[in-house]
Amino acid sequence: MLKPLFWDDGCLRLLDQRLLPHEEKWLDLTTWQEVRSAITDMAVRGAPAIGICAAYGMALAAKNADDLEPARLGLASARPTAVNLAAALDRIMEATVLDFEGILSIAKSMEREDLDTNLAIGKNGAKLVPDNANVLTICNTGSIATAGHGTALGIIRTAHEQGKVRQVWSCETRPRLQGLKLTAWELMKDEIPFCSVVDSAAAALMRSAQVDIVIVGADRIATNGDTANKIGTYMLAILAKHHGVPFIVAAPRTTFDLTAPDGSRFVVEERGDREITHIEEVRLAPEGCPVFNPAFDVTPGELLTYIVDETGVHEPPYAF
Amino acid sequence: MLKPLFWDDGCLRLLDQRLLPHEEKWLDLTTWQEVRSAITDMAVRGAPAIGICAAYGMALAAKNADDLEPARLGLASARPTAVNLAAALDRIMEATVLDFEGILSIAKSMEREDLDTNLAIGKNGAKLVPDNANVLTICNTGSIATAGHGTALGIIRTAHEQGKVRQVWSCETRPRLQGLKLTAWELMKDEIPFCSVVDSAAAALMRSAQVDIVIVGADRIATNGDTANKIGTYMLAILAKHHGVPFIVAAPRTTFDLTAPDGSRFVVEERGDREITHIEEVRLAPEGCPVFNPAFDVTPGELLTYIVDETGVHEPPYAF
Repeated sequence: MLKPLFWDDGCLRLLDQRLLPHEEKWLDLTTWQEVRSAITDMAVRGAPAIGICAAYGMALAAKNADDLEPARLGLASARPTAVNLAAALDRIMEATVLDFEGILSIAKSMEREDLDTNLAIGKNGAKLVPDNANVLTICNTGSIATAGHGTALGIIRTAHEQGKVRQVWSCETRPRLQGLKLTAWELMKDEIPFCSVVDSAAAALMRSAQVDIVIVGADRIATNGDTANKIGTYMLAILAKHHGVPFIVAAPRTTFDLTAPDGSRFVVEERGDREITHIEEVRLAPEGCPVFNPAFDVTPGELLTYIVDETGVHEPPYAF
Repeated sequence: MLKPLFWDDGCLRLLDQRLLPHEEKWLDLTTWQEVRSAITDMAVRGAPAIGICAAYGMALAAKNADDLEPARLGLASARPTAVNLAAALDRIMEATVLDFEGILSIAKSMEREDLDTNLAIGKNGAKLVPDNANVLTICNTGSIATAGHGTALGIIRTAHEQGKVRQVWSCETRPRLQGLKLTAWELMKDEIPFCSVVDSAAAALMRSAQVDIVIVGADRIATNGDTANKIGTYMLAILAKHHGVPFIVAAPRTTFDLTAPDGSRFVVEERGDREITHIEEVRLAPEGCPVFNPAFDVTPGELLTYIVDETGVHEPPYAF
């Protein structure tokens, strides 16, 4: 099983996702500032993975005898939308002894727990996948978005092991193309049959009855089920409802924001224009083209058929 | 006004859309085979524009004393989905005298008529645009997709001249990015305020009440209103319905397929993998990544609030 981040010989070893699928380069991070940059620049992404990285970042701060509070603040602000980041940092600051060994031990626990959690999510969610299923997903919610196995992609993985997956439709996920680059890379490695499509093709696939279930991840879930996730998730939820296709959100408990009664106050990160106007060094848009680039959207809980976490399968009305 | 194709000194002058928005290169086409390649390779695109180009292609065949039937078949098969191509060729073959001067005169008439048609569509459609409107569109339906002014973008243009357009949301239109490249280029030239977004962001924009009307073009319309258009159009129609936003299809009469009672037998062109897996020379997907790339989708007529053509505004149930 691929483990995209782990502690090794005094540093955080991290698979640099920006170079995938073409190159598997590993980063050795030795300061919390390097961890922060890795999160901000999206060398690591995926709500569970950035939470665990932030915890290791705190361990590095303690190891280097840095003040912990600036490290906590710096890591907490690395990206705004996912709740796991804040939750991981809160858990560390609540520890009785805030020394290097203590923090490292918590970070390692989080990593182990996340993997166990994802295996449980996979098992719980696979029960919802029908036999011979065509499954549609968006973004990357796989091994590299977590400590291993994945959330939505973890369900697909478990269902595939059970022989239930006919084919995965992997939405490419503009603008950063995590589906086309990362999910495709994971599915090819695991020899799970799939096909990449542009995001907007999901509607036509559903109309021609080529989608039996949609499974997506989450960056933050309110107590009523409102879910912040990759831009395009809300589109898929409406399309699934229109076509009578079950729509599943898969996420660990650490993704639930129990302070939020609904998603109306979720902060949606806006990222730079260049993610849309360029691909690497290739300019696509005219010079000066105005762009709006929200990284996430919020799907109302009532559009989710089920939410799957490590404790089981939850149905609406949600009240976490 | 920009005219992207016209007859000049014995050849068809054509703006090469593949190099936009970065370079304005004009092609001088002197054989029907060159016209066919320009259509197939998408140097020219847009249902009305390819119809007119095909007509000029027939004029070039006559000028060069080629057999007309192979030219007609070659041009007709250059792209499968738009009906304008076949309609233009039929109109030429029905002419009483099939010599160069006769065909050229028909092609020139088509060009003039298309421009007049688009100005009429613009006038008819602008009545549907509310004051201070945020208008969302997809793909490019502007001057360069036609003989001038455009269809859906023609309505936006006319409404903007009337002071009714607050802002255009231009969906980038994966995979070929006609919105990000071409529509952005046209809107900047005309100084119409706009913002480019990824296609999947349309849902979130509608939810936050930032879209007052959706206006799209068409490649083929059945007599019941079923509409083949750029992949993503069907997605937008469902999203518009879900949010109570009016959804308008704008097209000339030449886009109507009066032999089709509905869209069930429309041929949807599938294009090559490379449009998705690469941007220019940059490989995005892993080697060997499987891809499904339908260029169009079919939106059921019942999802269209109005169809606008040069004769006026049509409401469902449609019976053309």
